[in-house]
Amino acid sequence: MLADIKLLRDGGTPLYIQLYEQLRDCIQDGLIQEDEKLPPIRQLAAQLDVNSVTVVNAYKLLEENKLIYKKVGSGSYVMPLREKINLDASSDEEELEPELAAGEDGELINLATANPDPKLFPVADFKRVVNEVLERDGGNAFLYLESKGYRPLREAIHAYMQKLQMTVNLEDIYIISGAQQGIDIISRVLLANGDYVFVESPTYNGAVAAFKSRGAKIVEIPLMADGLDVKALEKMLKLMKPKCIYVMPSFQNPTGCTYSERKRKHLLLLCRKYDVLVLEDDYLSELSYLEDGIKPLKAYDREDRVIYIKSFSKIFMPGLRVGYLVIPDNIRERVMSVKYMTDISTSGFMQRVLSVYLRSSFWEKHIESMKREYSLRYIETIRIAKKALRGASFQQPYGGLNLWIRLPEGVYATALAEGCKARGVLITPGTVFLKGEEGERYFRLSFAGETIERITAGVTVIGEVMERLKLKE
Amino acid sequence: MLADIKLLRDGGTPLYIQLYEQLRDCIQDGLIQEDEKLPPIRQLAAQLDVNSVTVVNAYKLLEENKLIYKKVGSGSYVMPLREKINLDASSDEEELEPELAAGEDGELINLATANPDPKLFPVADFKRVVNEVLERDGGNAFLYLESKGYRPLREAIHAYMQKLQMTVNLEDIYIISGAQQGIDIISRVLLANGDYVFVESPTYNGAVAAFKSRGAKIVEIPLMADGLDVKALEKMLKLMKPKCIYVMPSFQNPTGCTYSERKRKHLLLLCRKYDVLVLEDDYLSELSYLEDGIKPLKAYDREDRVIYIKSFSKIFMPGLRVGYLVIPDNIRERVMSVKYMTDISTSGFMQRVLSVYLRSSFWEKHIESMKREYSLRYIETIRIAKKALRGASFQQPYGGLNLWIRLPEGVYATALAEGCKARGVLITPGTVFLKGEEGERYFRLSFAGETIERITAGVTVIGEVMERLKLKE
Repeated sequence: MLADIKLLRDGGTPLYIQLYEQLRDCIQDGLIQEDEKLPPIRQLAAQLDVNSVTVVNAYKLLEENKLIYKKVGSGSYVMPLREKINLDASSDEEELEPELAAGEDGELINLATANPDPKLFPVADFKRVVNEVLERDGGNAFLYLESKGYRPLREAIHAYMQKLQMTVNLEDIYIISGAQQGIDIISRVLLANGDYVFVESPTYNGAVAAFKSRGAKIVEIPLMADGLDVKALEKMLKLMKPKCIYVMPSFQNPTGCTYSERKRKHLLLLCRKYDVLVLEDDYLSELSYLEDGIKPLKAYDREDRVIYIKSFSKIFMPGLRVGYLVIPDNIRERVMSVKYMTDISTSGFMQRVLSVYLRSSFWEKHIESMKREYSLRYIETIRIAKKALRGASFQQPYGGLNLWIRLPEGVYATALAEGCKARGVLITPGTVFLKGEEGERYFRLSFAGETIERITAGVTVIGEVMERLKLKE
Repeated sequence: MLADIKLLRDGGTPLYIQLYEQLRDCIQDGLIQEDEKLPPIRQLAAQLDVNSVTVVNAYKLLEENKLIYKKVGSGSYVMPLREKINLDASSDEEELEPELAAGEDGELINLATANPDPKLFPVADFKRVVNEVLERDGGNAFLYLESKGYRPLREAIHAYMQKLQMTVNLEDIYIISGAQQGIDIISRVLLANGDYVFVESPTYNGAVAAFKSRGAKIVEIPLMADGLDVKALEKMLKLMKPKCIYVMPSFQNPTGCTYSERKRKHLLLLCRKYDVLVLEDDYLSELSYLEDGIKPLKAYDREDRVIYIKSFSKIFMPGLRVGYLVIPDNIRERVMSVKYMTDISTSGFMQRVLSVYLRSSFWEKHIESMKREYSLRYIETIRIAKKALRGASFQQPYGGLNLWIRLPEGVYATALAEGCKARGVLITPGTVFLKGEEGERYFRLSFAGETIERITAGVTVIGEVMERLKLKE
């Protein structure tokens, strides 16, 4: 059977995909028998003259598709047709021994950073677009652009926003190098030493760092299940006038909390009453797993009170470093000059590529496929977390890429994160987002970057470490 | 003699260089006689089946090397061995009529911004590299990278620096999104309200804006023909201790001034004596038109006193937005956290592309071709400026992309820039770089972005506007 495998090295389909497909066909055609052992990785790699990583990746795909299974210390075998390995059954617990948890390749299972999975990036489509731009624009693709951004991209974004029910002026859209830069620019425009900024508690620490770098004082407003605690907010607004309120109303980071429509309107009402700006950080409102999507806060804004920051890093690809700002007229000039000072302009080449991408059918196709894949991971993460994390509790966000999990009594987030790390699983303790004792009560579980199998293995490890910590206590 | 000319079209040596070299050999071997006329451009182009621009460029090189001379309205002739054409002769004026100024296509002639010419960007090579990276890395090309940058790129830069005689630690190299970001990051790391920064006078205004945004006070040190006025510098160093001295020792912007080796060493000596850091902004030390290249100040630095900022925008392509910093150990952590705050990291995709590019033969090929083309433009700009700008004076920088031109008495830079703009030619008045009256004495002429024909037309217009302003006065 091996003699028939032929890999084309023409730069088309990646080798591991070719290998996967041919092995899959062999198995499905019965050329390799049920429970028959596949060749060891190094041996096959040598025979095919490929890197062993290629074989590892092909075997992984076979495993994910339930075509083969592994025996610890022995190798990979063809899966019997009517059987499926029950990953949750405690019988194969030995599979989840520390050394396995870290993945067969020894790679850590990363449930800490909400980085999207590179396997989900639309590389082939992107490549087509890149080449199209290079054909079309030649050297012009690499010129400096005006600091506010490439006009056709801004137009494409304008159209995209309209689809999402946000009516804004084209002139108010500015291209930035990712959301973090947007937060930093707005901080430099709005904030001076001693100014107040209200933030959700818990919140994204990168934003807090930017506010503090301007000498601003941070006031934390508690987050409830349906958004900010508006009573606490109004109490604070009566005491002091912040330069802005920084919020993530859709699948908040780290809690996953999504503001109810009522809360969104209430927040805007308060901002009007006390004449305050809102800074909306929208990093993934597209990623809603319920039928009707989420409308950003900006869609409710009738009086230019919401500064809108959009990142494409989570829903598209982080490595592009492109996002955008929608700002009120009166800070336009200052935003322009700070943007210039920061990096002159965002990569013109990337702006051109994204512009073509947004206008193509690739974009919606991509968003749909992201939703599909992440909703599967979401459902599985919820399922395994409910089962494995006894005594822990969490809200179901129905979107986004994180769960915010409250620990059972006596288990502390820092100790949990350390224990998990020792077993090859990374999580983010709540202390990263919340000060003091309260931070020890939570951890953030991100399911964006790992496959369902690895999430399952990872969460199981977390559960085991949690049990051990309970006993100690 | 023409029958012997053979041009290889293998993509190696450019055609015009091949043609130049073969004609040169013919002349030096006496195959074309002294004062013999060369074939007309179109005729030779047709015979060789090349674009007439190829012949124009070859003839220009011959002329630059004093192998031929021109007779107005007649053609090019072989130079008698013991004669030299007086470059300042004002005889072929009719060749440069006003209607040519705005270019035949009606586009403005931009001698204001030092943006490189997109026609010189190596788009085909770049495309090959982009596709190679996408094949090789797939979705991984778009992941977040650690804030300090993609290690293989940092390694390639490390090797490149060693070639340029700069011995630095790999660990001190940080990737940034262009030089402006580097200046901004260092400002945020080093400067607080009321701190002093010394700068060259005149200097790059984008840097001054970044320093001022931190509340720093700017102290201007005059620039002399061979670099900073070290006496004035030491006088100021005795009075106050700046957080850093910001310099561009190679083809300074706007003056084109290059520090002598003695001045470089003297500057470092003073910095040692007064314990001060230097911020070296190296945006085009590669672009030296003399035989021996320019060594950056960093190459002389033995005690980590020079913070080195390198941009690839001018020597490669601005639209990539990638550059790097070399920093001393003790500010490493602060640089990392400010970089993170600014934009998390520079585009991972662009970093991967540049990494492959720097390691390939494409890189040196590109630098060589940039040098060749820009040196032609430089020589022509000098020639026409000497002829057309009567009463003006300037130093010859032998590198870079700008001339800094002192105006004759009674002509003011702002009025000149306005008059030129009305005739379709853009220049940068000295007031952009220097305060008050002194700024009115100069303008910057950038020859990076236009062809020789358009530069010639543009400079002629400048000369005409200058004459008119003299008369008015």
